[in-house]
Amino acid sequence: MPTPEILRRYAELAVQVGVNLQPGQRLLVVAPTEAAPLVRAVSEAAYARGATLVDALFEDAPLARSHVLHAPEEALGAVSQWRIDALMQHAEAGQAILTFTAPDPAGAAATPPVRAARVSAALAARAEEYGKLRSRVRFNWSVLPVATPAWATFLRPDLEASAALDWLWEQLFVLTRLDQEEPLLAWDAHADRLMRRCAQLDALAIEALHFAAPGTDLTVGLPEGHRWFGPRVATALGFSVIPNLPTEEISTLPHRARVEGRVRATKPLIVGGQLIEGLELRFEAGRVVQFSAQRGTEALRGILEADEGASRLGEVALVPQDGLVGRAGRVFYSTLIDENAACHLALGRAYPVTLEGGDAMSLEAFRAHGGNHSRVHVDFMVGSDDLEVSALTRSGARVTLISGGLWVLPALRTQRTFAGW
Amino acid sequence: MPTPEILRRYAELAVQVGVNLQPGQRLLVVAPTEAAPLVRAVSEAAYARGATLVDALFEDAPLARSHVLHAPEEALGAVSQWRIDALMQHAEAGQAILTFTAPDPAGAAATPPVRAARVSAALAARAEEYGKLRSRVRFNWSVLPVATPAWATFLRPDLEASAALDWLWEQLFVLTRLDQEEPLLAWDAHADRLMRRCAQLDALAIEALHFAAPGTDLTVGLPEGHRWFGPRVATALGFSVIPNLPTEEISTLPHRARVEGRVRATKPLIVGGQLIEGLELRFEAGRVVQFSAQRGTEALRGILEADEGASRLGEVALVPQDGLVGRAGRVFYSTLIDENAACHLALGRAYPVTLEGGDAMSLEAFRAHGGNHSRVHVDFMVGSDDLEVSALTRSGARVTLISGGLWVLPALRTQRTFAGW
Repeated sequence: MPTPEILRRYAELAVQVGVNLQPGQRLLVVAPTEAAPLVRAVSEAAYARGATLVDALFEDAPLARSHVLHAPEEALGAVSQWRIDALMQHAEAGQAILTFTAPDPAGAAATPPVRAARVSAALAARAEEYGKLRSRVRFNWSVLPVATPAWATFLRPDLEASAALDWLWEQLFVLTRLDQEEPLLAWDAHADRLMRRCAQLDALAIEALHFAAPGTDLTVGLPEGHRWFGPRVATALGFSVIPNLPTEEISTLPHRARVEGRVRATKPLIVGGQLIEGLELRFEAGRVVQFSAQRGTEALRGILEADEGASRLGEVALVPQDGLVGRAGRVFYSTLIDENAACHLALGRAYPVTLEGGDAMSLEAFRAHGGNHSRVHVDFMVGSDDLEVSALTRSGARVTLISGGLWVLPALRTQRTFAGW
Repeated sequence: MPTPEILRRYAELAVQVGVNLQPGQRLLVVAPTEAAPLVRAVSEAAYARGATLVDALFEDAPLARSHVLHAPEEALGAVSQWRIDALMQHAEAGQAILTFTAPDPAGAAATPPVRAARVSAALAARAEEYGKLRSRVRFNWSVLPVATPAWATFLRPDLEASAALDWLWEQLFVLTRLDQEEPLLAWDAHADRLMRRCAQLDALAIEALHFAAPGTDLTVGLPEGHRWFGPRVATALGFSVIPNLPTEEISTLPHRARVEGRVRATKPLIVGGQLIEGLELRFEAGRVVQFSAQRGTEALRGILEADEGASRLGEVALVPQDGLVGRAGRVFYSTLIDENAACHLALGRAYPVTLEGGDAMSLEAFRAHGGNHSRVHVDFMVGSDDLEVSALTRSGARVTLISGGLWVLPALRTQRTFAGW
């Protein structure tokens, strides 16, 4: 069991650094039932910041699994409308939403994949409008992992259940800098560093990225006006939030029609409760024309066939192997964490904020500029110690960004020294 | 921790006897977060009966208390609309709602009563429409208690937490007949017995009931067309449900304008998280004209002032002291259970089903017939070993129903012996 002190500090990180709750806002916490003690700590932290109402939309993985296993075939797509309403009511009113997630790889493996895919496709369809508001950052939101017994014992079957849970909380503390002396200052410095890297890549005016590694030889065109995107995001109301914690990545917009070549995922991924291992894709003119997996092929097919945009890229992210997550040196079976260990790509929905002016564009205009749209957004890792990423700039130069999985492009020095800091 | 077998049997009772779930129905389970293991067992039982979707609306008592304690004054009345939506979406579609409740008397005692009353008044106002559909049984619903650590340790501070929880589950098993050899048959027989008692009192055509006990001398007029109401109710779609388990009561409609005299509650009650002890009321022409309590006066005032109907009676219930709950011989600090230990009355909303044709009446017609309406419905106990209840019939006879807290009116024999049983 986590101590009250652990929960208090994690809650404060989530409320202050993650969702950056403002006085007078409501806060909706989306969390697994097992996280009730953390939700209570969040509530204390939120009211201390001036929240007007903190409520929780609890999810229960075994309950959801029971639907996948036992619902009549024709009722698999049934969705509780009120769950969507809860999210939409907060999102449309510009209130805050804080989500805690925990994967359950063992539970997912025990779930029939075709049925699971139908359930998640139905949910994704109903949540489409919410997904749009979220990717346009119309409200302050943030997602953090939370340690649960099922996840902890999956990762550490060698430990007693309670020791495994303690171990996982320790990992989350390290990954979110809570083990450092001044975590909030450490977050400031870390976020600054990543934001400067974004400015540096924006200045390069990149035409295309090239990924090279065993099984991978992929060129990803970047549309004109693409913008590198770091951990800090301004909401529609102008608050700076960090939508994902932990975070070690910077990312931008791939051109939906200019992706060519083949790519091999370097880590397993879990989508809609399904494990996909050994993913390989081949792209032509931006579209997946061939796919395979060692495990989870049906779930993969379900994703790719979700809609037209599901077989195109919506995100490309650069992450060095020596970040906090990379240094942890293990798979957490949680995309939220694992995507920060390594460079990755995503199938499906792109983020309008990664295109200059994209936030204000219609969907048609965004697509005309090369932005992709889909109900799904599925990350897969391509980073490894063998990965080389180079950039072809609009001026015709070829610049190596990452080699052997690490940044080789020298970081810009901060300008702050000249401004009297 | 309750064993899976305990949870399975309790879940089956709730799904089959309580809410009488029909194949093809959705089921919404409203439950405290601590009851997640029971909710999962309910889900298995419900899908086995042909449910199409089982979902849970979890409530967390410490989270709700944190709002009462810390929300800014002007935000105390803030309500999560989606919680109301969840209930309404099921109710309006004629789907099933199963509620598990657990009081938290220690938590309630630590909550400022005026603020708590404002929070519950706001919630009651928003849930008014739902309350109507519920009291008109437009959908199948049932409420059962669930054992939680906070409730168990409050009742048994002399035991270790886990032993207290085990003890409370044992109590719930006894009170819901799950300790008997054939619980479902036992429920059939018990419900039959109570329904026959209702038929017998209907045949008496009672004009008024008189309650006499120390501190109590109360005459409660019953409107023409009142109907005695037992544990079994037919929903709008014609399914027979048992809305409250455990249940030992039969009840009917008091006339909103024909209540005279004084009454003293014989047990404490908890309303909106507040404990009210030593309640005394004086009625004139159906209305409370004087009230007092040894504890919880503010909460009591909040109830009485909720609206015009809150200071009038909406229910009168007869319960012998020797029922299963009476025999348990203790207060559970849960109205759901305690009201079955003794005769009781309720302030506020009346049930249209307790009036002949009331279900189809407009609110105005229901009131014109003597039915009361209010946002609140608050039971308080008047039963004791000293209570005497007599009936004045329309034919002018005075019949003693209950004396020394026990039925003295002989029960009708079942007609079944004549029908070849």
